[in-house]
Amino acid sequence: MAEENTVYIGRKPTMNYVLAVVMQFNSGSGEVVIRARGRNISLAVDVAEIVRNRFILDSKVKDIQISTEKMTGDDGRTVNVSVIEIYLTK
Amino acid sequence: MAEENTVYIGRKPTMNYVLAVVMQFNSGSGEVVIRARGRNISLAVDVAEIVRNRFILDSKVKDIQISTEKMTGDDGRTVNVSVIEIYLTK
Repeated sequence: MAEENTVYIGRKPTMNYVLAVVMQFNSGSGEVVIRARGRNISLAVDVAEIVRNRFILDSKVKDIQISTEKMTGDDGRTVNVSVIEIYLTK
Repeated sequence: MAEENTVYIGRKPTMNYVLAVVMQFNSGSGEVVIRARGRNISLAVDVAEIVRNRFILDSKVKDIQISTEKMTGDDGRTVNVSVIEIYLTK
């Protein structure tokens, strides 16, 4: 999956990410990946659902992958963080 | 999917739900569904990843479904809430 088709979910308002996904589709992408870690995973699902139900009505969820990444915090400790990748296609 | 094989994620500590899933498998279930709404979706992914990586090493994610439910708040307004269902099998 090319990085350029991936929308990374952070701390901005939900609609920012919805628009980023919609713009990806409208610029010709047939597939967009929504990727989030930790607490942002819930937001990734919201973004996928809003795109699918309200903006790109012919898009659908092709696949959803979950995994675990190790992150090193400021104190040097390693923590496990869950990751989700939602593959939307149209 | 039988309701009895479903673990609903709420506001308890993560490990409570991990243990509930592990007990389902150990009581003979071949499939357990982890279900969560809204902000608890991140926790559902954590639970699935912890079960898979640390407790039931031969379990795997068979499927993940996302959807939207309408909920009515205390003030009578209807809001859309995202839902995740993670199907773990072994």
